[in-house]
Amino acid sequence: MTNRVYNFSPGPAALPLPVLERVREEFLDYQGLGASIIEISHRTPQFEGVLAETVELLGELLEIPANYRVCFAHGGGQMQFSMVPLNLIALKPARKALFVHTGIFSGRTIDEASKWGTAEVVASGEETGFDRIPAIDPAALDQAASYLHIVTNNTVMGTRWAEFPDTGDLPLVGDATSEILSRRIDVSKFGLIFAGAQKNLGPSGLAVVIVREDLLGQALPETPVLLDYTRLVRDRSLTNTVNVFSIYVTNLVLHWLKDFGGLAKMEEQNERKAALVYQALDRSGFYRPLAHPESRSTMNLVFDLPSEELNQRFVEEADAEGLYKLKGHRERGGIRASLYNALPPEGAAALVAFMEEFERRNG
Amino acid sequence: MTNRVYNFSPGPAALPLPVLERVREEFLDYQGLGASIIEISHRTPQFEGVLAETVELLGELLEIPANYRVCFAHGGGQMQFSMVPLNLIALKPARKALFVHTGIFSGRTIDEASKWGTAEVVASGEETGFDRIPAIDPAALDQAASYLHIVTNNTVMGTRWAEFPDTGDLPLVGDATSEILSRRIDVSKFGLIFAGAQKNLGPSGLAVVIVREDLLGQALPETPVLLDYTRLVRDRSLTNTVNVFSIYVTNLVLHWLKDFGGLAKMEEQNERKAALVYQALDRSGFYRPLAHPESRSTMNLVFDLPSEELNQRFVEEADAEGLYKLKGHRERGGIRASLYNALPPEGAAALVAFMEEFERRNG
Repeated sequence: MTNRVYNFSPGPAALPLPVLERVREEFLDYQGLGASIIEISHRTPQFEGVLAETVELLGELLEIPANYRVCFAHGGGQMQFSMVPLNLIALKPARKALFVHTGIFSGRTIDEASKWGTAEVVASGEETGFDRIPAIDPAALDQAASYLHIVTNNTVMGTRWAEFPDTGDLPLVGDATSEILSRRIDVSKFGLIFAGAQKNLGPSGLAVVIVREDLLGQALPETPVLLDYTRLVRDRSLTNTVNVFSIYVTNLVLHWLKDFGGLAKMEEQNERKAALVYQALDRSGFYRPLAHPESRSTMNLVFDLPSEELNQRFVEEADAEGLYKLKGHRERGGIRASLYNALPPEGAAALVAFMEEFERRNG
Repeated sequence: MTNRVYNFSPGPAALPLPVLERVREEFLDYQGLGASIIEISHRTPQFEGVLAETVELLGELLEIPANYRVCFAHGGGQMQFSMVPLNLIALKPARKALFVHTGIFSGRTIDEASKWGTAEVVASGEETGFDRIPAIDPAALDQAASYLHIVTNNTVMGTRWAEFPDTGDLPLVGDATSEILSRRIDVSKFGLIFAGAQKNLGPSGLAVVIVREDLLGQALPETPVLLDYTRLVRDRSLTNTVNVFSIYVTNLVLHWLKDFGGLAKMEEQNERKAALVYQALDRSGFYRPLAHPESRSTMNLVFDLPSEELNQRFVEEADAEGLYKLKGHRERGGIRASLYNALPPEGAAALVAFMEEFERRNG
């Protein structure tokens, strides 16, 4: 019997066990080809079939409208911090992008966008320690801007947008890296959604991009070829050798999610998992959840114990009990439990049991 | 027993069977962690250990001098077509890069470099159908240029530089994607060497970059953060979530190569494998090798049969006999046998036996 922990890693993160077992099973001989999936060309009918099906499954699960295109890009979510401005900042002559600053990763996107235009912060959660999503007035947004960038779920702080703003004609860009496929989402509210693969999709090094067709074709002339959405869309992501393994595993994860019952059912399970842990966090003053109740993420639950020493002991003892990677982000500290799709409800229950027992001994 | 073919795929390409078996064996539980290697953070001590050891093994196998740094970048070889000019073209005020044009991929690098400066072709193999590496006179090269770019081995045409030019103070950039680790190489002749992973290293989506320290720090200000060598080197390739799986498999491949006896022994085996096939190609007029004898690659052997119909029949019948992916590049046609490190000598022998038998029936 293989030893498997409950994996709370923020990313690369837990993947569904049946997916891993399937990869292992066919790893030396993919579909009777006599070679591994990682030994065959990205231009074989076998892999092109996987790729096309992956795009189709994403469309089905996320109910992506017909006027959107899906492509895969190298580099994960952070490459998108460069790709979005390179492709979209010139949509309007002002070359200006708007940002809602909600944590470490939105900060990095702002720095990066400044290389190609003006990056303006329209609202910031900094004053409240990023414990909530700040309110914005969509009607007050500068319509001369090319887009508004938000991070739909903040991995480090454990906050998320409960609802998305209606920005009208101003394209809304959503970084959904740490929550894609965790809940239903109205894609039509967005001009572009991207997500690094390594949370709810598959292995690292890849991002999925969902972009509204009419936003293509406006990339800056100096855009590196592999960072140009228009090229990637035209080439069905095969402008060069894609990350074959990551797309293959993502394909298996999407099948698993579909077999599970799709997004509505997964959303319901994620809410139950998160509610279980938040209830434990709210029950006593021993655990101190960071996120304001209205901005609570179901994917990343961030909290502190009464002292740094207790934080550390909590992480170590949890680890010894098979609750893996509960340590907070290195720039934030404390505790973070990431409850991505692949973490089974039993994992959340085991965490709560450990929390109660730990509090009894240390509270 | 698993069915395994002799895999002549140009890339993603064959990997050593013991490496694949090891991946499979520990795929559900990496080093007793209770999680897969693709489910753990790139910042765990376990993965950071793999990463550091991979850099060390590369240094050892390639005898990389102390004034060079190694980093991993997203996107494979083609992302380097953008990264090299972004990082190096401003080394001198003329913002000019020189190129030896030896096939499809050097053509793409030239197009890409033109986005940030002047790209000048100093020699081209185009007139002879790219069947050989054109001669250059290093003394005649424009010293106001920032670098000279060559493709050390041309995957599509099956040619390679038998020896590398001594360019003196002008940094030499080598695209070694399709031959890295296949032969000994004097790294000190180069300012920078890069290679996409998916031939002799590991799974696709990654490139390894070996850069001389004094060339760092000159990237154009608009360089996307993940395309900046200086950042990658400073962050030990962990500027964001790296392609964990690809680096992990590369690490296993490097161990396998070291256990095999290192580069000198692998070079000797590669020469034997290639010689066997070239002898069969030269024996009769039936097979028509593309590369001029002085420019012949040991990695990619490109040839034609007397008609397009015979080319097709050759590929199909070879495939039926377990000789996988002998079809030439889609922009070139004909036959291509890629004999990367992981293809065992028995594979080359099986190909030759098939060639002889096919000629008997069709010659």
